[in-house]
Amino acid sequence: MADKAVADFGLIGLAVMGQNLILNVADHGFTVCAYNRTTSKVDRFLENEAKGKSIVGAHSIEEFCAKLKRPRRIMLLVMAGKPVDQFIESLLPHLEAGDIIIDGGNSHFPDSNRRTKYLAEKGIRFVGSGVSGGEEGARYGPSLMPGGHEEAWPYIKDIFQSISAKSDGEACCDWVGDEGAGHFVKMVHNGIEYGDMQLICEAYDILKRGLGLPTNEIADVFAKWNKGVLDSFLIEITRDVLYYNDNDGTPLVDKILDKAGQKGTGKWTAINALDLGMPVTLIGEAVFSRCLSALKDERIRASSLLQGPAVPEFTGDKQAFIDDLEQALYASKIISYAQGFMLIQEAAREYGWKLNKPSIALMWRGGCIIRSVFLKDITNAYRNNPDLENLLFDDFFNKAIQKAQSGWRNVVSKGALWGIPTPAFSTALSFYDGYRTRDLPANLLQAQRDYFGAHTFRIKPEHANENYPEGKDIHVNWTGRGGNVSASTYIV
Amino acid sequence: MADKAVADFGLIGLAVMGQNLILNVADHGFTVCAYNRTTSKVDRFLENEAKGKSIVGAHSIEEFCAKLKRPRRIMLLVMAGKPVDQFIESLLPHLEAGDIIIDGGNSHFPDSNRRTKYLAEKGIRFVGSGVSGGEEGARYGPSLMPGGHEEAWPYIKDIFQSISAKSDGEACCDWVGDEGAGHFVKMVHNGIEYGDMQLICEAYDILKRGLGLPTNEIADVFAKWNKGVLDSFLIEITRDVLYYNDNDGTPLVDKILDKAGQKGTGKWTAINALDLGMPVTLIGEAVFSRCLSALKDERIRASSLLQGPAVPEFTGDKQAFIDDLEQALYASKIISYAQGFMLIQEAAREYGWKLNKPSIALMWRGGCIIRSVFLKDITNAYRNNPDLENLLFDDFFNKAIQKAQSGWRNVVSKGALWGIPTPAFSTALSFYDGYRTRDLPANLLQAQRDYFGAHTFRIKPEHANENYPEGKDIHVNWTGRGGNVSASTYIV
Repeated sequence: MADKAVADFGLIGLAVMGQNLILNVADHGFTVCAYNRTTSKVDRFLENEAKGKSIVGAHSIEEFCAKLKRPRRIMLLVMAGKPVDQFIESLLPHLEAGDIIIDGGNSHFPDSNRRTKYLAEKGIRFVGSGVSGGEEGARYGPSLMPGGHEEAWPYIKDIFQSISAKSDGEACCDWVGDEGAGHFVKMVHNGIEYGDMQLICEAYDILKRGLGLPTNEIADVFAKWNKGVLDSFLIEITRDVLYYNDNDGTPLVDKILDKAGQKGTGKWTAINALDLGMPVTLIGEAVFSRCLSALKDERIRASSLLQGPAVPEFTGDKQAFIDDLEQALYASKIISYAQGFMLIQEAAREYGWKLNKPSIALMWRGGCIIRSVFLKDITNAYRNNPDLENLLFDDFFNKAIQKAQSGWRNVVSKGALWGIPTPAFSTALSFYDGYRTRDLPANLLQAQRDYFGAHTFRIKPEHANENYPEGKDIHVNWTGRGGNVSASTYIV
Repeated sequence: MADKAVADFGLIGLAVMGQNLILNVADHGFTVCAYNRTTSKVDRFLENEAKGKSIVGAHSIEEFCAKLKRPRRIMLLVMAGKPVDQFIESLLPHLEAGDIIIDGGNSHFPDSNRRTKYLAEKGIRFVGSGVSGGEEGARYGPSLMPGGHEEAWPYIKDIFQSISAKSDGEACCDWVGDEGAGHFVKMVHNGIEYGDMQLICEAYDILKRGLGLPTNEIADVFAKWNKGVLDSFLIEITRDVLYYNDNDGTPLVDKILDKAGQKGTGKWTAINALDLGMPVTLIGEAVFSRCLSALKDERIRASSLLQGPAVPEFTGDKQAFIDDLEQALYASKIISYAQGFMLIQEAAREYGWKLNKPSIALMWRGGCIIRSVFLKDITNAYRNNPDLENLLFDDFFNKAIQKAQSGWRNVVSKGALWGIPTPAFSTALSFYDGYRTRDLPANLLQAQRDYFGAHTFRIKPEHANENYPEGKDIHVNWTGRGGNVSASTYIV
């Protein structure tokens, strides 16, 4: 069999993403073996796109495994869920200890946790890798976020960092961390993508309805923003979308139905934030905004029934307000990424993962949807201080927010007065103001909970004394009725 | 055995809630049989609180079941989760077809869905009932929200409506709907409770830090609000809490640590909203606000590092602003309840439940934490029109919001400028403004998704033509590169 083992890398799943990733790997000097359950796809691929390249095919799992050098490096690019488990099971009889299986699909991270453990027991090294950048990314440089069994990394590092996107000469791929950490970071990436898109939509809405700008002038604003601190793929395509005219010479975007779809990864991020108790409010609002947009028929009825303030006739300095809006978008984006990193940090704590924090921002710098100049500043922040407690504590971002905040506050305030919704701008600002508040009103909330449910409270250390010792659960009989019952006896 | 069957109702679980509920049932002329796994508790109860009342005890499940008239009506008040299933299993051998098991604990609604189906197969009628009002409610009138096997209702209606709280002479208990609908409605109740408490905290914070009022004057404000549209249990206890002085004559609330706890039902509501795609933003923000408050140590560090605007020195008409704040709280509360009912409606659609909508608000009117005058108006709205699409479409609430909105907008706007967080007020306003917007900026979002991921979009009906037919998924080649690939081939 040994003479048959010609391929450095094997890939299962020949949809466009898989084909493009194979071509990308082959372009970088590796021999790749391609397999697909419907084997006619293998033949078609070999005769067409793969022709003349260092690509071989297989028509059975057995043949596929035989053609791979040891330790085998096998990547699955199949639908997330059961198909991944099925392919793993069909591979197992043909593998040897030390072989590597990489799941490059959009798997939910708990599945990757499970698979890492399950395969480790069998001596197989599992990698769950986020892959971002769509078709074009797969072909010419995706963002890759691999995590799982760390022993696999030295064997796949060379291939992964060769084929990935580059940013300032650095590969947008590094080892993320244990178990499902790679897919977790990809999930948060997608959540952040939801947030970035929502922020752009709110800015667009304010330019359109608040300032009354026509679509082509809004495009000009995004074109200008794309040369500043907001320089990013999403701002760039927003510019292109807004400039894109239909055959009749009017902007196509104006004709598109305002019902947002979603594939669920933003939702996963928000649910995970709730589960881990981390206030990732901006992604939460972005997901809910998509939900609200989907209620189009109901909104049409509401629009004729529910009153708002008169449509504003903007009279101030338009350019100054547009500059404020740029700052609002920038500051809100900083908050969103800070929240995303808070979630990633908490996940590492909760799930016991070692995490390569400075590299996460680097992986998002190229090849993926949220790629931006901004991520270079985040990479710098974590390189300067890998133990940075919060992105907002980094000097660069602290100063950036400080500079942005008067414009940001002006935009949120005007949105409220004008009747233009700014759920993401507003929640970002409320988070910022809550986060920097030493004494939040949750003291009242704890008193309420103790009043009606005997849930107990704690005392502020500066007020601790014999009656109210620090760090103890205290119950007070607020009404003069009832007794010193324990909280567990209550159902609220 | 027949002569032994003396009891109308059986209850398992003699913690304070269970004991009080038994006493309540006995007070209304029914004979109750009490059982507890640790049987010494049964004896202690019979010799003390239960003495001289129509209460009998049992020292085994067998004896317990023998003492109940047919069909047996058995209520479990034990810890949610496994204990409920364990008691169900231990009861089953002693039950007959048609007997009724009621779970009155804080169970998650999917468990009640499962138990309804499982027990129906065995001929047993299961009821999952929300019970709210704590110890005192259980003793003198809880809010009861029963759902499950509808055939059970005629057999328990009399007891349940006798012991429940009353509001204007009506029982705060009615049949909610199928399967886990009772526990679902209880879950949403708890989520709304989180929202109401957060709104009160934001108002308190603005009175304290925005207007600079001392605690006793803030108490005066809540005392006054409790006589108006906000009249409710939570405003009442807020008043009491704020008036409550420590031994040294200063308000105790000022000394309480501002780290909010939670038991998880608010989180369940927010997660369910994300799962069902309903924008229940206010409860989401309320849960996240508790999470943020819990990061006290981090906030202390942030408070010395992150800058905000100068502390405001309020110079305008204080009373006018306090009136605005009352309106902001009222309007936001209307939004929160509207969102809660949107979620309940969607759950009924999604899970195929028949739901008794007009009664839900009635059940919340007395006995529970969110009881209020306000809920009477909601009951009226759904009685006037049981098919009401959205609470905001009801004339009373539509007018109330219209009247409230200038004050509401002023408060949100000032919070942003002053640097005082108003996550719940703000998200409520953004929801209102989004909901009443015919054309949201999600058109741009759909264009972006089609640009980078070929996710397709639809055309607004008014712009449909041959190229862009209504109701079809359309993909455009925005860049001039790439092709007409299908979305499923992309990984974004």
